[in-house]
Amino acid sequence: MSESTLTFPEADASKLEPHLPPNPSSTTAASSPGTQDAGPSPQLPFVTLTYATSLDSALALAPGTRTALSGPQSKAMTHYLRSRHAAICVGVGTALADDPGLNCRIAPSSDADDQPLPLRQPRPIIIDPHQRWAFTSESKVLQLARAGRGLAPYILIAAAGPDPPAERRRLLEALGGKYISLGDASSPASPSPFAMDWRDILRAVRAEGLDSIMVEGGGQVISSLLGAPNAQLIDSVIITIAPTWLGAGSVFVSPARRLDGAGNPVQNS
Amino acid sequence: MSESTLTFPEADASKLEPHLPPNPSSTTAASSPGTQDAGPSPQLPFVTLTYATSLDSALALAPGTRTALSGPQSKAMTHYLRSRHAAICVGVGTALADDPGLNCRIAPSSDADDQPLPLRQPRPIIIDPHQRWAFTSESKVLQLARAGRGLAPYILIAAAGPDPPAERRRLLEALGGKYISLGDASSPASPSPFAMDWRDILRAVRAEGLDSIMVEGGGQVISSLLGAPNAQLIDSVIITIAPTWLGAGSVFVSPARRLDGAGNPVQNS
Repeated sequence: MSESTLTFPEADASKLEPHLPPNPSSTTAASSPGTQDAGPSPQLPFVTLTYATSLDSALALAPGTRTALSGPQSKAMTHYLRSRHAAICVGVGTALADDPGLNCRIAPSSDADDQPLPLRQPRPIIIDPHQRWAFTSESKVLQLARAGRGLAPYILIAAAGPDPPAERRRLLEALGGKYISLGDASSPASPSPFAMDWRDILRAVRAEGLDSIMVEGGGQVISSLLGAPNAQLIDSVIITIAPTWLGAGSVFVSPARRLDGAGNPVQNS
Repeated sequence: MSESTLTFPEADASKLEPHLPPNPSSTTAASSPGTQDAGPSPQLPFVTLTYATSLDSALALAPGTRTALSGPQSKAMTHYLRSRHAAICVGVGTALADDPGLNCRIAPSSDADDQPLPLRQPRPIIIDPHQRWAFTSESKVLQLARAGRGLAPYILIAAAGPDPPAERRRLLEALGGKYISLGDASSPASPSPFAMDWRDILRAVRAEGLDSIMVEGGGQVISSLLGAPNAQLIDSVIITIAPTWLGAGSVFVSPARRLDGAGNPVQNS
């Protein structure tokens, strides 16, 4: 909990700038959807997909394990990217495996008078259709929210499932988080581990006033977003590749393949 | 057959230089093994592994198909790299799928008097333990050898297999190529599609006076070389990554995983 502040060099930030959503600390953000000349649509947020892989496109040696594929520079970049998005998103597998903090620890920038600007914390979004994430008050993201060093998560659950336990809902809401139900409540939830429609997810995020979202992991979430037709919802992709190979049996990122009219596979792009 | 000459910028070549075997056109190569201060061992050549993948580490959409993952720049780089190696190596799968030329079409460099230096063509090495490659005089690599624009291949076959057809051997040898038998002739050839020992392969290459080799593909050859314990035979790895995803079901590069003493997977590096 006492992890230090990270610094991301301004030169590197400039290189990333063309790939990021409009910077709220350097431009006057439009206050209502639809008034911006460019950027996210009124219904959908700006979507940045970011992840770190090995050279063989693996995120981790095995499901549920954490494999170090980033150094201090890419860690600082991740936190800088978090500071530039209204929301950050992970799947329940990552929440279960990593107990992630999902906050931003980048050093705040300064205004024209050299006064530090308030650090905008991103809203954590957890995709958890089947309510597998049994968080407690000791879960890291809730500890950070309680300490004022991050925001409590919005948890996306399937409307067709049971109501979440009342105690857990109280815990979440007391810190400013909440459950958001998605999909059709009258039909049973899909048994698929990743059962949500990305357009539904992103519309729900935008409806909360969150105009940009950074999708961080894990493997199923990333591969699902990269697959057709979801890939067209992505505005930007930022990948860090570590000079190593994790090898067969690892958790790979690879979307379902696209097929042309004749049923032959074609490249995603 | 009338493909044009490629040019690789000198600035890019300088960046690659630290990762390449000693340059025969700029240094006095040691004439006998063992007299060099640095570089390849007397028994083994300098080994460069090079390949082009998608972001999800795929070489092609399906086995036996060719997927464009390189542009003019990376094509020129490949031919420059070929000019810097005594041999280039592909597996039989690539020979069958691509009918590759395996020659070098880079523009020759000049000496101090601005006279073009003779272009050194690399020796093609085809790993074909089970003699699946039924080449003819019309195979591209043989056409190029006949035209003096490349060298005829050395084909590595399993000693335990049958003798190659006499006519094919004559065709090969008339152009300066040959078959090289590897392994134990008294035990049956392994049924595995990639059945050769990399140390045997590289020793055989070095025994032919070839002091550097660039391994180009395909998927089985690359993944096999990257796997433990073969990876330690590699001196340099040069990968081109195209900004696309080929998706599930493609031909992926990923080595067999390494296990530690307790049987847990560890990173290759």
